[in-house]
Amino acid sequence: MPEEIQLSVPTATRLADNAVRSIRITPVAFQDPPLLNTVGVHEPLALRAIVQVRTESGVLGLGETYGDAAHLQRLAKAAEAVLGCDVFATNDMRTRVERSVAADGVQGGHGMSGMVTGTSTGDRVLSPFDVAAIDIRGRVLGVPASELLGGRVRDSVPFSGYLFYKWAAHPDAASDEWGEALTPDGIVAQARRIVDGYGFTALKLKAGVLPPDEEIAAMLALREAFPDHPLRIDPNGAWTVETSLRVADALKDVLEYLEDPTPGLEGMAEVRRHTDLPLATNMCVVAFSHIAEAVRRGSIDIVLSDHHFWGGLERSRLLAGFAETLGWGLSMHSNSHLGISLAAMTHLAAATPGVDYACDTHWPWKREDEDVIAPGTLTFTDGAVAVPTAPGLGIELDPDALARLHRQYLDGGIRERDDTGYMRRVDPGYVLESPRW
Amino acid sequence: MPEEIQLSVPTATRLADNAVRSIRITPVAFQDPPLLNTVGVHEPLALRAIVQVRTESGVLGLGETYGDAAHLQRLAKAAEAVLGCDVFATNDMRTRVERSVAADGVQGGHGMSGMVTGTSTGDRVLSPFDVAAIDIRGRVLGVPASELLGGRVRDSVPFSGYLFYKWAAHPDAASDEWGEALTPDGIVAQARRIVDGYGFTALKLKAGVLPPDEEIAAMLALREAFPDHPLRIDPNGAWTVETSLRVADALKDVLEYLEDPTPGLEGMAEVRRHTDLPLATNMCVVAFSHIAEAVRRGSIDIVLSDHHFWGGLERSRLLAGFAETLGWGLSMHSNSHLGISLAAMTHLAAATPGVDYACDTHWPWKREDEDVIAPGTLTFTDGAVAVPTAPGLGIELDPDALARLHRQYLDGGIRERDDTGYMRRVDPGYVLESPRW
Repeated sequence: MPEEIQLSVPTATRLADNAVRSIRITPVAFQDPPLLNTVGVHEPLALRAIVQVRTESGVLGLGETYGDAAHLQRLAKAAEAVLGCDVFATNDMRTRVERSVAADGVQGGHGMSGMVTGTSTGDRVLSPFDVAAIDIRGRVLGVPASELLGGRVRDSVPFSGYLFYKWAAHPDAASDEWGEALTPDGIVAQARRIVDGYGFTALKLKAGVLPPDEEIAAMLALREAFPDHPLRIDPNGAWTVETSLRVADALKDVLEYLEDPTPGLEGMAEVRRHTDLPLATNMCVVAFSHIAEAVRRGSIDIVLSDHHFWGGLERSRLLAGFAETLGWGLSMHSNSHLGISLAAMTHLAAATPGVDYACDTHWPWKREDEDVIAPGTLTFTDGAVAVPTAPGLGIELDPDALARLHRQYLDGGIRERDDTGYMRRVDPGYVLESPRW
Repeated sequence: MPEEIQLSVPTATRLADNAVRSIRITPVAFQDPPLLNTVGVHEPLALRAIVQVRTESGVLGLGETYGDAAHLQRLAKAAEAVLGCDVFATNDMRTRVERSVAADGVQGGHGMSGMVTGTSTGDRVLSPFDVAAIDIRGRVLGVPASELLGGRVRDSVPFSGYLFYKWAAHPDAASDEWGEALTPDGIVAQARRIVDGYGFTALKLKAGVLPPDEEIAAMLALREAFPDHPLRIDPNGAWTVETSLRVADALKDVLEYLEDPTPGLEGMAEVRRHTDLPLATNMCVVAFSHIAEAVRRGSIDIVLSDHHFWGGLERSRLLAGFAETLGWGLSMHSNSHLGISLAAMTHLAAATPGVDYACDTHWPWKREDEDVIAPGTLTFTDGAVAVPTAPGLGIELDPDALARLHRQYLDGGIRERDDTGYMRRVDPGYVLESPRW
């Protein structure tokens, strides 16, 4: 597996102005706290891949995606296929990528450590190229990406404060600035800090970590501490149908929505039949191929879009069209990410009328001094990010910062996200179960 | 009801370059032969409305839609709402149109004479403004409309030869050039003429006019005369489930697909459970709100898109996304139309990979010397239309021709398509039934 991928069309070949002349894919790593979830714990470094697409006329577009080794392999094959493609030719780009992954034989590389494995390989690989293409189109036309996605319907995009059970520190390290959060009080303290720092007006707890009663207690404590914040809980399918219904009942006056309480379309449908709480998902409907079955079974009320696995920004608009058509609410899922992704998420949400809920982001868990873009463009005010108005994504790559995070990737040695493996290195008796309770 | 609608932003108001400065909506009429269908017969004049949208910087975009009086009323209200809208702001334009029709109290104006009444009012009204906006965007950016719809995946778009039972002439008129077609031989002769003239490689019979056995006989005669042409039959829901299955069985080795044999999603689902023939529709799934129910019931295999009632070209891409996602085939429905619509249909089909079937068009039934666009751009070769490569829709309005067809509208006196009423004026005992057989 190459550490960095650089491809370009042979110098002798002339291309149209907006055709892809070269692609550079740089794996990077940034520091990540020990955030707990139902499959394990975040490793000290989170991986991403930064995709730079440059056209014949020299315009640079940026994309960001998972950094897992298998995903990088696929990105390399896709990049080869995308060379020469016109950045305005959405259909052609998608066809090239789909063909490149059709029979690649590569396993894994879902980017989400076993929590979400049903995403479409083609859409996952297409995403960063689509984002980069839209960045370029905006730069060529002199308009922000949001304008190319149907036009801005809001000037800033509200995000939710994403709360995690966490250890005070990674093993053998000093406590991080956030400290431990393993109790209701710890979660409330974390929420206070994150709300004070960013102004978030909605809160979400990553659950499925502690026995359900403890997590119920945490939500009730949050409700008391934040009487007006919409609250959500997401155990990543850690609960049986019975447990899900017990939690739903206990939190029925507290939650804005209940996210992925139990695994699978039928389990979700069964929960949905017995609660009035809206059910949201980024686990049982994570590809276009899941939608028909979700409709037939009546599994969900809200879909969490995520351009990283729904095929980029163009295809996320398609998902938004599905949501509107099917009467589903629309929110947005997040993984540990850097500024290119935050910019893309912000443009997409700004141009998607149906986004009814504050979007998820892991942003506060990233160190402020670690990113690959020049600082200053993306800032949180009252929990929302102002939509960049400069052409394209409206952000600029910082080559030195990219080099630093690439160096951190090379030195860090992590080549695949593996929350479960890391947890087992800490706690050899750790057992993966789904549902867990 | 105004005969022609002309609206513009007050001269003193300055707008952004790409904002809509003025809109002109001109109802027109063109001659139409006495084509029979299950709700009656085409009147001597078919109605359309030509929509001209001009931006602050003077760029003109064209749209074409139904010309029924009620539809014109709604278009006028929508036009008022669209003034000042940026032609790149898809979301904003749709919101403005949806609001304008939300509580207008206007009845009717479906444009399809009772055959299709379930289309979305908002999408029907939005369509010509969306087409005109895309025409303008293409002109501003110097690229054909197909490039703005995801990029051309074919250089020419195959259409099907659309066969009709017909009288030799409208009452009290001399026989038209096509003559009578009320028997298998008559239909075969019509097919020969239309294939010789246009090169169509697929044929479709508008049925539901004669007893099913006679229509079965016509299809078998077509199969004998055209052994290699894909064949379709469309009775517009004229048959019971039982009759539909009888016809399906009789034509199981003859048809490419069976289109709307019986009314309603449940009737279609019942037919579909008992035949291997693919079922197509432009009657039971004609709005986004019908899709979920069609999925739940399993009513169809193929959806016929039509940008005139699916909200224009952008939203037709959404429909194409649904079709791909749900595993539905995609074809295209047609009404009597002029050149602006043919250009829009051609660009859309060219940029939609999922269009698996030759698209319907009424084009051959329109006199060659009647249109509103300058001739020469849209021509049929081997049954297909080459995708225009000039910016936008790639066609130009002919103001004199527009004036002539508007004059014909004013003089003709028809203000609503009414195939049934016309039939009753000819045959007072004519009874509307659905299903009929």
